[in-house]
Amino acid sequence: MDKKKRGRRRFLKEAALTGLAVGGAIRSAGAQTGAAEKSDGRTKGLYPFAYGERSHFVDSLRTGTNGFYGVDQRPGVPRDYGFRTPLQNSVGIITPASLHFMIAHGVVPPDIDPRQHRLMIHGLVDRPLVFTLEDLERLPSVSRIHFVECAGNSAPSGAGFAPGEARVSPTATVQLTHGLTSCSEWTGVLLSLLLNEAGVKKGASWILAEGAEQEMHFKSIPLEKALDDVLVAYGQNGEPVRPEQGYPLRLLVPGYEGINNVKWLRRIKVVDQPAMGMMESTKYPSLRVDGKSRWFQFEMGPKSVITRPSGGQRLPGRGFYEITGLAWSGGGTIKKVEVSTDNGRTWKDAELQGPVHRKAHTRFRLGWNWDGDEVALQSRSTDDRGEVQPTVAELEKMLNVTLSAAFFKERPDTIAHFNAIQSWKVTPEGSVQNAIFS
Amino acid sequence: MDKKKRGRRRFLKEAALTGLAVGGAIRSAGAQTGAAEKSDGRTKGLYPFAYGERSHFVDSLRTGTNGFYGVDQRPGVPRDYGFRTPLQNSVGIITPASLHFMIAHGVVPPDIDPRQHRLMIHGLVDRPLVFTLEDLERLPSVSRIHFVECAGNSAPSGAGFAPGEARVSPTATVQLTHGLTSCSEWTGVLLSLLLNEAGVKKGASWILAEGAEQEMHFKSIPLEKALDDVLVAYGQNGEPVRPEQGYPLRLLVPGYEGINNVKWLRRIKVVDQPAMGMMESTKYPSLRVDGKSRWFQFEMGPKSVITRPSGGQRLPGRGFYEITGLAWSGGGTIKKVEVSTDNGRTWKDAELQGPVHRKAHTRFRLGWNWDGDEVALQSRSTDDRGEVQPTVAELEKMLNVTLSAAFFKERPDTIAHFNAIQSWKVTPEGSVQNAIFS
Repeated sequence: MDKKKRGRRRFLKEAALTGLAVGGAIRSAGAQTGAAEKSDGRTKGLYPFAYGERSHFVDSLRTGTNGFYGVDQRPGVPRDYGFRTPLQNSVGIITPASLHFMIAHGVVPPDIDPRQHRLMIHGLVDRPLVFTLEDLERLPSVSRIHFVECAGNSAPSGAGFAPGEARVSPTATVQLTHGLTSCSEWTGVLLSLLLNEAGVKKGASWILAEGAEQEMHFKSIPLEKALDDVLVAYGQNGEPVRPEQGYPLRLLVPGYEGINNVKWLRRIKVVDQPAMGMMESTKYPSLRVDGKSRWFQFEMGPKSVITRPSGGQRLPGRGFYEITGLAWSGGGTIKKVEVSTDNGRTWKDAELQGPVHRKAHTRFRLGWNWDGDEVALQSRSTDDRGEVQPTVAELEKMLNVTLSAAFFKERPDTIAHFNAIQSWKVTPEGSVQNAIFS
Repeated sequence: MDKKKRGRRRFLKEAALTGLAVGGAIRSAGAQTGAAEKSDGRTKGLYPFAYGERSHFVDSLRTGTNGFYGVDQRPGVPRDYGFRTPLQNSVGIITPASLHFMIAHGVVPPDIDPRQHRLMIHGLVDRPLVFTLEDLERLPSVSRIHFVECAGNSAPSGAGFAPGEARVSPTATVQLTHGLTSCSEWTGVLLSLLLNEAGVKKGASWILAEGAEQEMHFKSIPLEKALDDVLVAYGQNGEPVRPEQGYPLRLLVPGYEGINNVKWLRRIKVVDQPAMGMMESTKYPSLRVDGKSRWFQFEMGPKSVITRPSGGQRLPGRGFYEITGLAWSGGGTIKKVEVSTDNGRTWKDAELQGPVHRKAHTRFRLGWNWDGDEVALQSRSTDDRGEVQPTVAELEKMLNVTLSAAFFKERPDTIAHFNAIQSWKVTPEGSVQNAIFS
C-alpha cells in the first residue's frame, strides 16, 4: 500500500477517519487570555497596551489598487493589480504581516469563522479527510522563513497586470518595481504529512488546491512539490495568518510563483493531471519569442534589488552610505550577492545577513563612499545551484528580444519571471532614479 | 590611541564631528510611498489594504497592569507590573511587535518625533557625538534575532512586582507565568561601532544608558558587554521599533535582564564605575540565603517552558498531541531541550526549530500520545556552555531555602533569575494546571 511505501508515521487513528479526522482540540480558557475582549487596537481604550500600534510618525503603507476594489484615483498611483510592500523602508528579512503584499483573484473573504472552516483532502486517496483548524493545530508543526512573490513582480509588463509604463519610469520606487514580494516566518503542517494520512493512490501526479473566496480560485501543483516542502500554514510571524493572507489557512509553496500559495485554503484534490483553469492557461503565461507562451513555470528568481538607496530617495551629499537590499531564489539558498557602484563594471561581494534561509529573503549590505559623481547602483544574486541573476542584456539574448519601454508598450503580454538586474541611477544632485532600461 | 588599538574602521569624517555627526540622510519622496496619508489601520477607510489588521476572530492580547497606568479592575486580573505576551498562542520564534511584552519604569513617551530625537555619546570619549535617527540609518547595520526578558519573569515573587500568589496558583496560564519574554528580529547599529567612532578613553569600564521618559530611567552596563553584541536598534520585525518598545531608538543588550534594554534611548555616558541608581540597587536584587541580596546579575536563563498544552488549556481526549514550547539562554545558544511526560522520571529530546539563534527564543516540539492518565509535562533546556535548567529542588539546594507558595508569601523579596523547570499537570479530565510547586 502506498502509505507503507511512503514509510511515514500516521498520526490519526483509523477509528477517527469517518469524516472529521482528529476530533477536538486544545482550547484555552478565555478569561486570562483576554479572549473576552474585542480584538486588535480598538481595545486600547479598554486597558492600555493590550495590543500595540505603530508610532503615528511611521507612515509606511502598501500602495496599489485593483479592479475588485475600485481603481485608486489618487494622483501618481498607477492602475495596478496588487498591493505592494514598501520595500524602501524594509529592514532585516521579516516583512510585517500588516505590510505583506496582497493580491487576490477575487474578493477577500472578510469574515471566515475559524470554527466553521474546513480543509478537505480527497481525490486519488485511500481515505478522504476533513480537518478543522483545531485538528491541524494538534498535528506536528514546522516553522520556516520563506518569501512569497507574485510571478509578475518587477516585470515591466502591460495588460494592466503590472503597472506598465510606471515600472520603467525614472520616478519608480522600489515599492512599485519590486513590492510584490514579502517574507515571513510561516508555521503550519507539512502537506506531505496530511497526504500521507490520506494515503496517495498510485497514478496520482498533481494536486488541485482551492480557496474559499466566492470565485473559487484553484491552482494545479505537481504532486512531487506537494510532497516536498509545501506547508498548510496557519501562522505567520508568530500569530494567525492575516485575513488578506488567507486566514485561517493558506498553502505555502516555497519558491514557487505566488499564485500557487492558495489562500483561504479549503480543498486539496489529488489528481492524475493538472486542471487547465484560468491560472494555468490565461493568467500566467511567459513570453516566448515565437509568439507562443510558456506554461507551468514555477520557481522564482534568482533575483535581488537594492532597497536603500532606491528610486525616489535622495542622498543629501557625499560621504558614507550603507547600500542594502534583498536577494532571494525559488531554487534554493542565496550564496552570494554582488554590488556594483559603477554601472556593472566592477562588483564587490556584499555581506549577507546570516543565517541565510532557504527560499527566503536574504538581506545584503555593503558600505559605500559616494564621491558625488553620477553612478548606477546594481546588485546581482547567485543561488546554491550556481544560477546567477541576469543583466537586461543577458535576458534579451535569452528571449531574443530588445527589452525597452517601447517594446512593452507594443507587447502587452505578461512577462512573468522577469529577474533582470535592477539599476538605480544616482544623479550628482543625489536623486535616485529607476534606470532599468538605461 | 584607543581608537587605533581597537583597530576599527571609522565611518565619520573628522570635519563632521563638531556636534551633529553625519549630517543629512537618505530621504524618500512621500508621494509614492503613501507618506502623505495618515499611518496605520485608520487609513483603511481611505483605500483598501493600505495596512492589514488581524481577523476579528483572533483575540490574543497582552494582559497586565501597573501603577503608572492605574490598576486593572477586571475580574481575574492580578495586580501586576507589566504587560505580558500571550505565549499560549505563540507559534514559531517571532513575537508580533503588537504583542511584545511591555514594562516601563515610567510613563511611555507617547509621541517622540524622530526628527527631533537625538542620541548623545559622551563621558570618557575622545569625541562626544550626537546622532539623529537618520545619521544612524546611514551607518553599517545588522539584524539579529534576540529575546528580551524581564529579570522577574516566571519568578513567584511578591512585593507587587510579579503577581505573587497568582503565579503559583493552579489556574495560572503561561502568559501569567512566563509572559515577560518576547523575541524579535532587531535591526540597528552595533554600539561598538558608535563607541569606536567616539573613541573610548583609557580607564573607561562601564556605560550608563539613559532613556527619554520623564523619569529618565538609566542603567549601568559593563563596557565589555557594550563593545560586544549590544545594538542601538531602530528596527523590529521589519519595521520601526514600536513606541512601547522604545521608538525611535532602544538599546538591545542580548541575553541580559530586560532592564538593560533601555528604551527611548537618548544618552550613553562612558564612565569608570557603575552608577548606583534605582535599577542597580533597589529594584533588581536577587535573593541570598543570608538575607543579603546579590547585585549586578545580568544573564538570563537557561530557561524553557511548554506553551502548548499549558495552564488553563484543555485536552478534549486521549490521542496524539504535539507538545511545543520555547527555550532560551542569555549565555548563548540552546543546544538541547528535553521533555518529560512523566513528572521528570524520563526525558526525551525534543526537536529544535532551526536554525537556532544565539540568545534567542528557540521553538521545540515533541509528539506525544496521551493515554488519559494524570501526567505532569515538563521541559528543560541546556545551552552551549553546558548549563542546564534546574529543577525546583535543585534551585532550592542552590539557594538553601524551600521554595513554596508559603515561602513567597512570607518573603516578599524579588526572586529574579528564577529559571526552575515549569511543570504543567494534566488531569484525567484533560484540564491543564500550573504545578510549579506540587
